[in-house]
Amino acid sequence: MTDRTKGRRDFLAGAASSLLAAPLLARASRAGAADAPAPEAPSLESPLRAADYRRVTFCDPFWAPRLRANRETTVPHLFRKLREVGAVGNLERAAAGQKGGHEGYVFADSDVHKALEAAALCLGSGSDARIAAEVDALVPVLARAQQPDGYLDSAYQLDDKPRFTNLRDDHELYCAGHLVEAGVALFEATGRRDLLDVARRTADLVERTFGDGPGRRPGYPGHPELELALVRLSGATGDPRYLRLARYFVEHRGEGFFAVEHRTPPGEYDGTYWQDDARIRDHQVIAGHAVRALYLFSGALDVARETGDRSLQAAAERIWTNAVERRMFVTGGLGSSAHNEGFTDDYDLPTYDAYQETCASIAFVLLNERLFRLTGDSRYADVVEWTLHNAVAAGVSLSGDRFFYVNPLASRGGHHRRDWYRCACCPPNVARTFASLGRHAFATSADDVYVNLYAAGAADLDVGKGKLRLELRGDYPWDGRVLITVADSTAGELALRLRKPGWCGGPVAVRVNGAPQAPPSERGYLVVRRAFRGGDTVELDLPMPVRRIEGHPYVEQTAGRVALGRGPIVYCVEQRDVDSPVAGLRLPAAAGLRAERDPALGGAAVLRGPALAAEVDAATPLYGVGPPATRAVSLAAVPYAVWDNREPGAMRVWLPTG
Amino acid sequence: MTDRTKGRRDFLAGAASSLLAAPLLARASRAGAADAPAPEAPSLESPLRAADYRRVTFCDPFWAPRLRANRETTVPHLFRKLREVGAVGNLERAAAGQKGGHEGYVFADSDVHKALEAAALCLGSGSDARIAAEVDALVPVLARAQQPDGYLDSAYQLDDKPRFTNLRDDHELYCAGHLVEAGVALFEATGRRDLLDVARRTADLVERTFGDGPGRRPGYPGHPELELALVRLSGATGDPRYLRLARYFVEHRGEGFFAVEHRTPPGEYDGTYWQDDARIRDHQVIAGHAVRALYLFSGALDVARETGDRSLQAAAERIWTNAVERRMFVTGGLGSSAHNEGFTDDYDLPTYDAYQETCASIAFVLLNERLFRLTGDSRYADVVEWTLHNAVAAGVSLSGDRFFYVNPLASRGGHHRRDWYRCACCPPNVARTFASLGRHAFATSADDVYVNLYAAGAADLDVGKGKLRLELRGDYPWDGRVLITVADSTAGELALRLRKPGWCGGPVAVRVNGAPQAPPSERGYLVVRRAFRGGDTVELDLPMPVRRIEGHPYVEQTAGRVALGRGPIVYCVEQRDVDSPVAGLRLPAAAGLRAERDPALGGAAVLRGPALAAEVDAATPLYGVGPPATRAVSLAAVPYAVWDNREPGAMRVWLPTG
Repeated sequence: MTDRTKGRRDFLAGAASSLLAAPLLARASRAGAADAPAPEAPSLESPLRAADYRRVTFCDPFWAPRLRANRETTVPHLFRKLREVGAVGNLERAAAGQKGGHEGYVFADSDVHKALEAAALCLGSGSDARIAAEVDALVPVLARAQQPDGYLDSAYQLDDKPRFTNLRDDHELYCAGHLVEAGVALFEATGRRDLLDVARRTADLVERTFGDGPGRRPGYPGHPELELALVRLSGATGDPRYLRLARYFVEHRGEGFFAVEHRTPPGEYDGTYWQDDARIRDHQVIAGHAVRALYLFSGALDVARETGDRSLQAAAERIWTNAVERRMFVTGGLGSSAHNEGFTDDYDLPTYDAYQETCASIAFVLLNERLFRLTGDSRYADVVEWTLHNAVAAGVSLSGDRFFYVNPLASRGGHHRRDWYRCACCPPNVARTFASLGRHAFATSADDVYVNLYAAGAADLDVGKGKLRLELRGDYPWDGRVLITVADSTAGELALRLRKPGWCGGPVAVRVNGAPQAPPSERGYLVVRRAFRGGDTVELDLPMPVRRIEGHPYVEQTAGRVALGRGPIVYCVEQRDVDSPVAGLRLPAAAGLRAERDPALGGAAVLRGPALAAEVDAATPLYGVGPPATRAVSLAAVPYAVWDNREPGAMRVWLPTG
Repeated sequence: MTDRTKGRRDFLAGAASSLLAAPLLARASRAGAADAPAPEAPSLESPLRAADYRRVTFCDPFWAPRLRANRETTVPHLFRKLREVGAVGNLERAAAGQKGGHEGYVFADSDVHKALEAAALCLGSGSDARIAAEVDALVPVLARAQQPDGYLDSAYQLDDKPRFTNLRDDHELYCAGHLVEAGVALFEATGRRDLLDVARRTADLVERTFGDGPGRRPGYPGHPELELALVRLSGATGDPRYLRLARYFVEHRGEGFFAVEHRTPPGEYDGTYWQDDARIRDHQVIAGHAVRALYLFSGALDVARETGDRSLQAAAERIWTNAVERRMFVTGGLGSSAHNEGFTDDYDLPTYDAYQETCASIAFVLLNERLFRLTGDSRYADVVEWTLHNAVAAGVSLSGDRFFYVNPLASRGGHHRRDWYRCACCPPNVARTFASLGRHAFATSADDVYVNLYAAGAADLDVGKGKLRLELRGDYPWDGRVLITVADSTAGELALRLRKPGWCGGPVAVRVNGAPQAPPSERGYLVVRRAFRGGDTVELDLPMPVRRIEGHPYVEQTAGRVALGRGPIVYCVEQRDVDSPVAGLRLPAAAGLRAERDPALGGAAVLRGPALAAEVDAATPLYGVGPPATRAVSLAAVPYAVWDNREPGAMRVWLPTG
C-alpha cells in the first residue's frame, strides 16, 4: 500500500507525458511550461489551410505501401464488389427507367458515391487508366439516373417510394451528401464538371425543399453528412445557399423533427441515437450513434469556420473533451457498443466487445482535423495521428482488399477482415481517407507551416507569401529521427511549426542545418522561425521508448492492465507470436521490451520481451482461491494496425500486469 | 516473476478448496482423498427424493425473513400487478367470451399461472386467507376461459389467432407448462382438483396434437417448460402419456422444426437460440437462450429419472460441466449477454454487462437439483446453495416487492430493482422458488438423509424405513457452527449425510452427542451412520474465513481482480459504504478483512477492512504512463444478495488487486 500511495507523485508527473493530450492537462502543463501563455487555447484569427493532398507524396514504410495498395487494389476492388452486390446495378436500372428490385440497404447509393470520391482523389494524385475508366463509366449512369428536378436515389426511384418521407431512417440526404462529396472531389481533382453538375442539381433540389424560407419544409438528415458536403460545395462553387442550408440543418437538429415525422409520443421519444435530443449548442457529452455524432459536429465546425460562429466551435470542443477524456479507445477510435453503433457511458471502454467502427474512427479524424484548423492546437493533430495510425489503419488489410467494420481490442480468434459487408460503408470510407491522406500531414497560414505527420515524403505547400517544398526522410513511425529539408522556398521568413507529439514524453532534440537549437514551444509545436533557403535542414529526434500505457482508474476494463505503445503506435499480441494462449498472458512491471523491425510485417517495429503465461489445465477451476501459476514465455507484440494479416488467431491489446 | 512461478503449487493446492466443485477437480481430489473410490460419480440406483417443502420450516437469519416477505408481500403484490397490467383481465375477458385487446406479451398468461403456483405452494406450507382468496377467484376464471377441447391461451383466444402456428415464438406450450405446474402444485398443496383438471384438459389436448402417434403432428415448445410440467403431471396422476410426450419433446428437439415452421432456408437457419441446433444428446456446450437451455435440460433429466436413460443424463452432465467450468458467474448465475438473453463464448463473463437473468439462475437451480437427486453428488448441491444465496436471492428486495430481471456484477449507479416488468417472468419465478425452498434443504433415500442447506429450522422427513424430524440451530450463513438435533426418529439405523460445502477449504469439526468424530466422506458428504434416537445431536463447525476469489486466468473480465466470499456468500461493494468512487477502488493482497453483523441489513455479515482508492482529478488522463496514485480508505462489502436495498448507487463485485 505504501508503494501505491507513494506512486501518486510519479503519476501526476507522468501525466504530463500522457499519451494523448488530455485537454485540461495539456492546457495546465503547457501554461506552466515554456509555451506561450495560451491556457484557453483561443481560436486562430483565420483558420489554417490543409495541405493540397495532390501535392503531398509519401515514401515512408507505414503509409506509402498502404496508399499504393489503396490505389492499385482497394479502389478497383470497391467497384468490383459494388457491381457484384448490385449497388451499381441499382443506379444502372434507375438510369434505364426500370422499376423494382432495389438491391441491398436503402443507402447503397452512398457506397457508390464514396467509391467515386475515392477514385476521384486517386486521380487527383496521378493518372490511372483503370480508375479513370470506372469514373468514365459511372458518372454518365448517375447523370441519366437523376430525375429532371435533381432527385437521385435509386432505392426510392426503383421502388417508387414517396421521397423525403422518412428522413430519420432512409438516408436520402446522407446519399445526397456523398454524391456532393464525390462531385466536388472529381471537380477539384480533374477539373471535370459533369459529376459536380449532377451534385449541384441534387443540392439545389434539397435547398429548394428544406429550410425556413418560403415554400420550404422543416427537417434534417437522419444520418448527418450532407452538412459537410454542402459547406464543401459552397466553397467549390462560391454559392452561399449551400452553406446556409448546412447551417439550417446543424442549427435545427434537436428540435425533435424525427418524433414528429414518426408520430412518436413526446414522452416516448429519445432522440439521442440521432443527436436529436438537444440543440447543437446544448450537447454536453458525445452520445448516440458514433458516426452520426462525429459527422454532425464536423459539419458544425465547417459552418463555424465559414461563419466565425464560436458557439458552435465551443460545443464541438465540449463533446471532443468528453470523447478524449472518457470515451475514446486507446487506439483512438470511438463507439463502445454494437447495440447503437455508438456511445454508452463515461469510462465504459470494452475490449472484446469494443465496437470502434472503422467509419467512426475516420469521422473522429474529420472532427479533429477541423478543430486543428480552427485552433492550430497540436492536441487535435495528436489525435489525428493517433487515430489514423491505429484505429483507422487497422480497418484494412495490408493487401488492401479485406476490411474490418468492427475493431475490437481483443479477439478469441473469430474476428477477421472480410472482403465486403452487406453494410459496406467502411471500405470506401477508408479508401477516400487514404487517397487524401496528405491533407493531414501539413497545414499552412499566411506565414506558418505546420508539420503534423513525420512520414517520409515530400510536399509542395503554399503559404501566404510564396511557395515551399519540404522533403522528409527517415523511418517514422518506426524510428523517431526525422530529417526535413527545405528543398525550395519563395516564402521568405516563416515559422516552421513542428508538432511535438503528445505521446512524446522526453525532450526532442532539434538541429537546424546541423546546429542544435532549443526552439520555443507554442500550442504544442516547436517553432523554428527563419527565412528558409533551399537546402536548409531541420533534424528532429523524437524519443521512442516502449511505453506501458495505463487507462484511467475508472475504466473497469483496463484497470490493472497495460497496453504497449511506442511512438504513435499501439501494439497488440497475436496468438501466433506467443507459445501459450494469449487469454492467459500477463505482463509484469519488470518485463523489459525492445523494438525490432520485422520484414514479414512490411518492416514494422515489433516489440519483443518476456511475459508470463498462466499455467492452466483441466483442473483449473473457474473460481478458486490464490493466484494462478504462471511460467515465463517470450512475447512479441505487433502494431494493432497490422493484426490479422497473418495466420488467424486470438488477439489482445490490454494485458494484466498482476 | 519468481513469486508468480512459485505460486503454482499453492494454486493447485488451493484449487482443491475451489469455491465451487469444478467437477474434474472435485473428482480428482476426492479420488485421492478419504472419499469412497467413485471417480466417475456414477448415478444412484434409485434417485433421491427431495424433502416435502410443506414440512420444512426456516427460522434462520437469511431465508426466514425472505420467505415471510414472499408470503406476506411478494405473492399479494404479484396478483395486484397482474391485475393492473391486464394479465388477469386477459383471462377474465377470455372467460367472458370477449374478443380482441389482449394486453402485454403473448406469454402474459404464464405470469398468472406462475403466480398461482407460488400461491399454491404458500398454501401448502400453511393457510393464508388472502392468498386463498386470490386462488379462489382465479381458478374459476381459468376454468371458464378454457375452451371445450382443453385449449387455454388468452392471447390466441382474444385475438382469434390460429393455434399452434408459431411454436417458435408464441409460447402457447410454455404457457401450458406453467398452467400444469400450477395445477399440480395446487393439488399437492391442498388436495383441490379444479385447477388440476383444467391443467389435465390442456395437457390432454397437447398430447392429442403433438407426437409421432396417429393423427399427431411434429413440433416442440419454442420455450421449454412443458417438458418439466408433463413429467410432474405424470407423477401426480400416474398417467404415462404425459411422460411419453415430454420424452417426445426432449428427444425430437434439434430436428430443425422451427426452420420448417418459419420456412427458414436450411443454410440460413441457426437454431442455437432455441437449442434447436443439435439433438439433445449431441449438445457439447450450453448455448443459446439461458432459461430455455436450462429448462430443456432440466426436463431431459426428469425424463432420464423416470426412464433410467443414462444418455440423457450424460448430455446434461456435459453441458453442466461446460457451464460451471467456463460460463458461470461467480454469483452462480448464467447468461453473459442481453443480446440473446444467454450464452456467448467460454470464459466470457462480463461485470457491468452481465445479464444473469433471475429466471436463468432459478433454472440453473432446477438443473442442479435434478442432477443432485440422480447422483447424490454434493457438487450439484453446492451449486444449488451458491446460486440460491447469491444470484437468486439478489433477484428480489428484502422488502419483497421489488425485483431484478438483469443482475449485473457491477453498476455505475443506474441499475435498480423495479416493482414490475413488462416481461414479468422473474417476479413470480422467484416467488415460487422461495415458496418451495425447503425441497432444496434435504433429500432422502431408503436409508439416507442428505442435509444440503444448513439454515436453522426444522424438517419432517420420510426415509424408507420410517420418519425422522431434524431441527437445525445456528446463524448460518453468517456463522459456520450448526447444531443438528434428531428430535424424533422411527427410522432405525441410517446415514446422515452432511454436505461439506465446496467453498469450505478447511477441516470440518464434527461432534456427535458432544464427542468429536471423523466421519468418512462420500461424494462430498460427511457420513454419520447410526441408529439415531430422539435428542441425538450432531454439531458441525464449518470454517468461514474471508476468501479472495480469483477467476480462471482466461476470464478477461476478472483477471487481476478479486471477488470476496465468506461461506456461501459472495460480496460486493456499494457506493454508500465507501468514501471514494467505487469505480476507482483497489483491494491489494495485504488488505485484511473481518466479518461483522450489520443490523441495518437484517443482521447480514458485512466485511470491513482497508482498501485503496484511486486519486483522480480533472487532470487525470484517460491514458497515461505509470500507475494511478491511491489513498487508503475503509471499505465495507455487503452480500451481493442484499445490494440495492439502501441508498441507490454504484456497485462492484470484482475489484482490481494491483
